[in-house]
Amino acid sequence: MDAITIIAAVSIVTAGLTIAIGSIGPALGEARTAAQALQAIAHQPDEANTITRTLFVSLAMIESTAIYCFVVAMILLFANPFWTWVIEAAKTAGGN
Amino acid sequence: MDAITIIAAVSIVTAGLTIAIGSIGPALGEARTAAQALQAIAHQPDEANTITRTLFVSLAMIESTAIYCFVVAMILLFANPFWTWVIEAAKTAGGN
Amino acid sequence: MDAITIIAAVSIVTAGLTIAIGSIGPALGEARTAAQALQAIAHQPDEANTITRTLFVSLAMIESTAIYCFVVAMILLFANPFWTWVIEAAKTAGGN
Amino acid sequence: MDAITIIAAVSIVTAGLTIAIGSIGPALGEARTAAQALQAIAHQPDEANTITRTLFVSLAMIESTAIYCFVVAMILLFANPFWTWVIEAAKTAGGN
Amino acid sequence: MDAITIIAAVSIVTAGLTIAIGSIGPALGEARTAAQALQAIAHQPDEANTITRTLFVSLAMIESTAIYCFVVAMILLFANPFWTWVIEAAKTAGGN
Amino acid sequence: MDAITIIAAVSIVTAGLTIAIGSIGPALGEARTAAQALQAIAHQPDEANTITRTLFVSLAMIESTAIYCFVVAMILLFANPFWTWVIEAAKTAGGN
Amino acid sequence: MDAITIIAAVSIVTAGLTIAIGSIGPALGEARTAAQALQAIAHQPDEANTITRTLFVSLAMIESTAIYCFVVAMILLFANPFWTWVIEAAKTAGGN
Amino acid sequence: MDAITIIAAVSIVTAGLTIAIGSIGPALGEARTAAQALQAIAHQPDEANTITRTLFVSLAMIESTAIYCFVVAMILLFANPFWTWVIEAAKTAGGN
Amino acid sequence: MDAITIIAAVSIVTAGLTIAIGSIGPALGEARTAAQALQAIAHQPDEANTITRTLFVSLAMIESTAIYCFVVAMILLFANPFWTWVIEAAKTAGGN
Amino acid sequence: MDAITIIAAVSIVTAGLTIAIGSIGPALGEARTAAQALQAIAHQPDEANTITRTLFVSLAMIESTAIYCFVVAMILLFANPFWTWVIEAAKTAGGN
Amino acid sequence: MDAITIIAAVSIVTAGLTIAIGSIGPALGEARTAAQALQAIAHQPDEANTITRTLFVSLAMIESTAIYCFVVAMILLFANPFWTWVIEAAKTAGGN
Amino acid sequence: MDAITIIAAVSIVTAGLTIAIGSIGPALGEARTAAQALQAIAHQPDEANTITRTLFVSLAMIESTAIYCFVVAMILLFANPFWTWVIEAAKTAGGN
Amino acid sequence: MDAITIIAAVSIVTAGLTIAIGSIGPALGEARTAAQALQAIAHQPDEANTITRTLFVSLAMIESTAIYCFVVAMILLFANPFWTWVIEAAKTAGGN
Amino acid sequence: MDAITIIAAVSIVTAGLTIAIGSIGPALGEARTAAQALQAIAHQPDEANTITRTLFVSLAMIESTAIYCFVVAMILLFANPFWTWVIEAAKTAGGN
Repeated sequence: MDAITIIAAVSIVTAGLTIAIGSIGPALGEARTAAQALQAIAHQPDEANTITRTLFVSLAMIESTAIYCFVVAMILLFANPFWTWVIEAAKTAGGN
Repeated sequence: MDAITIIAAVSIVTAGLTIAIGSIGPALGEARTAAQALQAIAHQPDEANTITRTLFVSLAMIESTAIYCFVVAMILLFANPFWTWVIEAAKTAGGN
Repeated sequence: MDAITIIAAVSIVTAGLTIAIGSIGPALGEARTAAQALQAIAHQPDEANTITRTLFVSLAMIESTAIYCFVVAMILLFANPFWTWVIEAAKTAGGN
Repeated sequence: MDAITIIAAVSIVTAGLTIAIGSIGPALGEARTAAQALQAIAHQPDEANTITRTLFVSLAMIESTAIYCFVVAMILLFANPFWTWVIEAAKTAGGN
Repeated sequence: MDAITIIAAVSIVTAGLTIAIGSIGPALGEARTAAQALQAIAHQPDEANTITRTLFVSLAMIESTAIYCFVVAMILLFANPFWTWVIEAAKTAGGN
Repeated sequence: MDAITIIAAVSIVTAGLTIAIGSIGPALGEARTAAQALQAIAHQPDEANTITRTLFVSLAMIESTAIYCFVVAMILLFANPFWTWVIEAAKTAGGN
Repeated sequence: MDAITIIAAVSIVTAGLTIAIGSIGPALGEARTAAQALQAIAHQPDEANTITRTLFVSLAMIESTAIYCFVVAMILLFANPFWTWVIEAAKTAGGN
Repeated sequence: MDAITIIAAVSIVTAGLTIAIGSIGPALGEARTAAQALQAIAHQPDEANTITRTLFVSLAMIESTAIYCFVVAMILLFANPFWTWVIEAAKTAGGN
Repeated sequence: MDAITIIAAVSIVTAGLTIAIGSIGPALGEARTAAQALQAIAHQPDEANTITRTLFVSLAMIESTAIYCFVVAMILLFANPFWTWVIEAAKTAGGN
Repeated sequence: MDAITIIAAVSIVTAGLTIAIGSIGPALGEARTAAQALQAIAHQPDEANTITRTLFVSLAMIESTAIYCFVVAMILLFANPFWTWVIEAAKTAGGN
Repeated sequence: MDAITIIAAVSIVTAGLTIAIGSIGPALGEARTAAQALQAIAHQPDEANTITRTLFVSLAMIESTAIYCFVVAMILLFANPFWTWVIEAAKTAGGN
Repeated sequence: MDAITIIAAVSIVTAGLTIAIGSIGPALGEARTAAQALQAIAHQPDEANTITRTLFVSLAMIESTAIYCFVVAMILLFANPFWTWVIEAAKTAGGN
Repeated sequence: MDAITIIAAVSIVTAGLTIAIGSIGPALGEARTAAQALQAIAHQPDEANTITRTLFVSLAMIESTAIYCFVVAMILLFANPFWTWVIEAAKTAGGN
Repeated sequence: MDAITIIAAVSIVTAGLTIAIGSIGPALGEARTAAQALQAIAHQPDEANTITRTLFVSLAMIESTAIYCFVVAMILLFANPFWTWVIEAAKTAGGN
């Protein structure tokens, strides 16, 4: 296996696993927060506005960790600095 | 194993595992939120509208992490930049 | 092992594991939601319609992640782009 | 190991594991739903009809994920497209 | 290892693991349902008939996933299509 | 390692693991059901007959999954179709 | 490693693991049932006879899965059909 | 590694692991039963005799699975039929 | 595999896993804190300001551990000191 | 590696792991029993004698499984029958 | 693989895993403490000052373990004594 | 690797793991017992003497399993019978 | 790989994992203690001084195990006796 | 790899893992005990002295298992009898 193949294979696997593993925590976390918000609304309907606002801020915070993983996966697929380097090195060397 | 075979095999495995692992968190998370919403409706039927609206927004947020995984899996199967590169490289070299 | 064998073996394993792993989350999730719906109906029979409607929407959302996995498994078995490519490459080369 | 042996061995293992792993989630999920339905009937006997109807719909939804796994296992054993291809390729080549 | 040995060994292992793993979920699931039914009978003796009937339907649904696994294990041991093929291929070739 | 040794070794390991793994679920499941039955009898002594009868039916259902595993283990040890084949093949070939 | 050594080593390991793994489920299950029986006696002393009788029947059912494992372990150690075959084959061949 | 070394090494490892793994279940199980008995005595001191008698019968049943493991471990160390065979075979062959 | 390929492959894998694993803890942690805050607001609406302020400080503390992981992942992808060294060493040596 | 080294290394590892793994169950089990006894004494001080006596009998039963593991570990270190055999075999052969 | 490559690859992997694994405990721990603080404020608003002060001290203690991990990761990336040594050794030897 | 190195390496690893694994159970177990004792004292201060005495006896029993592990670890480090044998064998042979 | 590289690589990995694994327990433990202290203050504000003092002593005890791990990690990175030895041995030998 | 390198590498890894794994149990255990003590003080302030005294004795007992691990780790790093032996053997042999 030459360098280009290794870099490509590793990037594919890592991109997939990063977003797959990285989606477990946020999905469960957002569910917990949302479930609690629904319970809170049922118990205290008068505070629905405050609860909803706090819920959305919290969901944004939790979603941010999923975004981190998605960003890293996209970087690995479409803006991978190591891939760029080996492609250019292969062009320079006139072969792979 | 040549480069094309490796890239293809790795893409297949990663696409499958990404959506498989990535569906566990959202499925359980959406279930938790929906279960809580049903309980909330039963306890406070008068707030069914508010609860349902908050539920749908939350489900959309949680579903988004599953969508991320599905998008990555589809990219790996049908718009894989590394696969495109090795295919073109093979054509250029006149063989694989 | 030549390229065709590897692609075929990897596709078989991935298709099976994808739907196997991907069915755990939705099955448990739908069960949780349905169980809560049954409890809610028992507690608040007058809201059975609202509860049932919300239940079906939620089950559809959760089932969607299982559908994603089933779609990917079917694509790997019957519309696998990598398999198509190596088969055609083998035909072109006049042998495998 | 030639291609036919690999494809056959991989198909056997995958078929078995797919239905084995895929039966855990639905079995536990259906049990949870049914247990809750029994409890609901005991608490609210007058709603037994509504509860039973909702239970059967839910069991059908959950059983569907087990059916997906069973279908994939049966496809791998009796309608495996990759096995068909290698068998025909072996016949064409006049040997295995 | 020739093809016949591999197919046989893989079939044995897969048959055993399929029924072993596949019996965990249904056993625990049926236990949960039955335990809940016993509790429901104790709480609401007058509904014993409805509860028992719902219990048996549920046990049948859950047992079905164990049956799937048992069927696959029996197919692998006694009606294995891949084993049939390699045996016939060995007879045709006049040796193994 | 020749074919006979492999088949024998694999059969031994699989038979042991099948019954070992397969006994965990039924043992825990029967315990749960029986424990609940004892609690139900203590709460509702007048229904002891109904409870005991339902308990025995449920135990039989759960024990069935353990029986499946035991049957497969016994088949692998004493009526193994693959072992029969390789023994006869060895006799025919006049050696092992 | 010749066939006799492999069969012997595999039989030893499998016998040990079978009874070791197979004792976890029954031990925990019997404990759960017995603990519940003790609690039931404390709550309803007048039903001690019924409870004790049901307890012993249940313990016998649960112990049966441990017996299955013990039987398989003893068969592997002292009545192993595969060991018998290879020993006789070795005697016939006049060497091992 | 010759046959004697393999048999000896495998027997040592298996004997240790069998009793080690096999002691987890009974230890936890006996603890659960005994803890419940102590609680029952505290709640219903007048039934101390019945509770203690049932406790001892239950402990004996649970301890039996630990005894199975200990018996197998002792057999492997001091009455190992496979070890006996290879030792005698080595003496007969006049060497190892 | 030469040094450049190894460093690149290891950096890709580590960057992905770092952010993937590192997002589980913060996502679940922030969810727990936010869920409790929502419950607290529902119970004590008059203290919503104090609760919200404490919530945001806590979320910032928890998010900091996710930031640590993201920083390390970005350093590995775009400011990797080991990658810089081997690239310069390769330039100096006039080849890789 | 000659036979003596293998036997010694395997004995050391097994002795350590046996007592290490085997101490988890009894330690947790005795803790559970003792904790329950303390709670029982606090609830029913008049029965302290009965409780303490039952506690000590139970602790002795649970400790017995730890003793089994310790005995096996000591046998492996200081009265290992396999070690004795290979040492004597080495002396007889005048070398190892 | 020469020494420099090994040291670099090992440092990268270890730095990433250290901060990734090391962020799980503190994130969950801080969340638990903060959640409890929010609950305490809701129950006892008059003690908000004492609670907040104790919360911040506790968060600092817990964050310290995350800091330890971050420090070790940064040392491995930017002040690695082993890397320094091998770089200097390579310079001295005039080659790698 | 010669015999001395293997024995030494194996002894080091086993000694460390034995005490590391063996400290988990007793630490958690003693904590549980002590926590319950503190709760019991708070509930029934008049029985503090009986509770404390029972606590210390229980802690001694639980600590004994940790002592077993520590003894085995010390034996492996400082009184290892296998190490003694290979050292003397090496001296006798005048070399290793 | 020569000795220096192995020692360095092993030291890096061990230092990172030691502090990473070693921070999980203390972080969770301190969180539990602090959470309980906050709850205690909310329930019994008059005892805040006693509670806070006991909290700090307990946190110091728990932090001590994290300190042990950090000390070992620092020793491995900056005062590693084995590294010192091999460096000096390499200097003495005038080469590695 | 010569003997000295192996012993050194194994000692480093074992020392780190021993203290890392060994700190989990005591940290969680001390936290549980301390949390319960804080709760006990809040419930029964008048018994604070007895509770605190019992707490410190218990913490000392639990800390002892962490001390065992730390002692073994320090012995492996600074007073390793196997390292001493191989160093002296290397000096005697005038080489490694």
